[in-house]
Amino acid sequence: MAKVYDVIILGAGPAGLTAAIYACRRELKTLVISKDTGGQITKAHSMENFPGFEKIMGAELAQKMAAQAEKLGAEIIFEEVTSIDKKGKNFAVKTTKNYEGKALIVAYGKTPRNIGVPGEEKYSGKGVSYCATCDMPIFKNKTIAIVGGGDSALDAALYGANIAKKVYIIHRRDEFRAAEIATKAAKKVKTIEFVLSSIPKEIKGDKFVKSIVVENVNTRETKEIPVDGIFVEIGYEVKTEMVSHLVKLDNYKQIIIDNLCATSQPGIFAAGDITNTPIKQAVVAAGEGAKAALTAYNWLHQVKTTITTDWGNKK
Amino acid sequence: MAKVYDVIILGAGPAGLTAAIYACRRELKTLVISKDTGGQITKAHSMENFPGFEKIMGAELAQKMAAQAEKLGAEIIFEEVTSIDKKGKNFAVKTTKNYEGKALIVAYGKTPRNIGVPGEEKYSGKGVSYCATCDMPIFKNKTIAIVGGGDSALDAALYGANIAKKVYIIHRRDEFRAAEIATKAAKKVKTIEFVLSSIPKEIKGDKFVKSIVVENVNTRETKEIPVDGIFVEIGYEVKTEMVSHLVKLDNYKQIIIDNLCATSQPGIFAAGDITNTPIKQAVVAAGEGAKAALTAYNWLHQVKTTITTDWGNKK
Repeated sequence: MAKVYDVIILGAGPAGLTAAIYACRRELKTLVISKDTGGQITKAHSMENFPGFEKIMGAELAQKMAAQAEKLGAEIIFEEVTSIDKKGKNFAVKTTKNYEGKALIVAYGKTPRNIGVPGEEKYSGKGVSYCATCDMPIFKNKTIAIVGGGDSALDAALYGANIAKKVYIIHRRDEFRAAEIATKAAKKVKTIEFVLSSIPKEIKGDKFVKSIVVENVNTRETKEIPVDGIFVEIGYEVKTEMVSHLVKLDNYKQIIIDNLCATSQPGIFAAGDITNTPIKQAVVAAGEGAKAALTAYNWLHQVKTTITTDWGNKK
Repeated sequence: MAKVYDVIILGAGPAGLTAAIYACRRELKTLVISKDTGGQITKAHSMENFPGFEKIMGAELAQKMAAQAEKLGAEIIFEEVTSIDKKGKNFAVKTTKNYEGKALIVAYGKTPRNIGVPGEEKYSGKGVSYCATCDMPIFKNKTIAIVGGGDSALDAALYGANIAKKVYIIHRRDEFRAAEIATKAAKKVKTIEFVLSSIPKEIKGDKFVKSIVVENVNTRETKEIPVDGIFVEIGYEVKTEMVSHLVKLDNYKQIIIDNLCATSQPGIFAAGDITNTPIKQAVVAAGEGAKAALTAYNWLHQVKTTITTDWGNKK
């Protein structure tokens, strides 16, 4: 017999753990299943944009949230989920074991794509970043490279040009998928240099990134560009296959939520980077986690009004 | 001449201060104007639901956020705003002085209505609460009274019945404005007792709340009910008159925002309790503050794509 919980939360990043905090405070029997604690933020060497913490290691913040959720009664287990299905009124969640939840909160985030070159993993968090909004301020008056040619790459380049003294955009094609307006804007900025038809081959450094080696895809020539930082902006993987038979996804395979974090499936809620919310930030994910838990609570109690409003919505 | 800022943030609660943190990290010249630091959370004696802090005084959390924003370069001033208007491409914000912002983030929250009886102010934070989601867990196995008859009052009562051993609902009428389903559910709960056609007259206690005195509006009889806690759920005031000529409001006078915290007025963004987001929680407000700042940044740079996505939105 599977153990039955009021709510099973998939993922233990800021979204999942905040959901757990809120669920437990509502006295819901809460299970969090995750591969690890923290999700994306554990890759953040130092966070300076989570309100309340002037500076904190991502992993440390995640540990604080996990401890807080556990203290309130959440069970957190580290297992890999292999399937999620409806089972009568409940949802069956399988790892190597079986669990059942009356409600689910899907919050296991997404994974940025790696370039997959030597040095990338070694210098991750030591000059190689996957989040411009998070890490750009480190590179004030430094030289950086952006890898990618989509909207987020061009955005990172334009943002970077306000901070860094020099920005390279390394893109494998000679044209951009990014919005025309962003591409045009980038071309006007003197400190942005385009390195087109080029792919990264290696990232070099000592303790910190020192350079990136790129190869021209036409001439096969390589060159080494000295940089202090590299932003990898080549998209991410959202692994929602496991829930795609249950909830509606957008074109990017992200789970579509409403403003209360409900999905198209009654009883399934979602929060954080895995949703169609376009701003992928820890504090945004945390806010959604709180919403998802309160909405799940209301759903479990079958109250379908404005009752998620703590202060009343009356005139 | 008014001093011109990239963004002027109105309000210094979790929404406004998180917006300031994000705006400054994007190197926007940022001014925060507020009557005080912290907004609603300063009324929270102890917060246990903000992720990352197992237990913190609301006022202390607010101070941390303010210090963080200031360290990043935000100017925070304590003045009362008297008018907000368009002025050419900018927005003019008046206090006793004049300020101008290229963009505005409206985040000055709302104020819960008081009952206005002797003892209420004295015991605020000492048994009298205006936020059930925030404070209910304190009253585990205790006796509480909910004052009000709308959705949020009934919701608080139903939630309270899972936590407290006894819940009184004190309501001035003999019928409820709350959704029928919630009213019906409350009537089924044995530990919920209705005290109808009754208004609070006084709150008594020593260091902490001990009782509430109510008067029957028909018979004028009074009685004193021993309680450990009182939740005031009679709605709140949203003071949006100052911006009602600029942005669209909902029926509750809350500012309508989209999922990126943009309002109906280009250049004006909003976050937190003042918006139509129905869940009024500090971490939700903080998440919106981050969104509003990044969306304002994008607007200031006139990039109108998916670029608020840090990780790229590509397949």
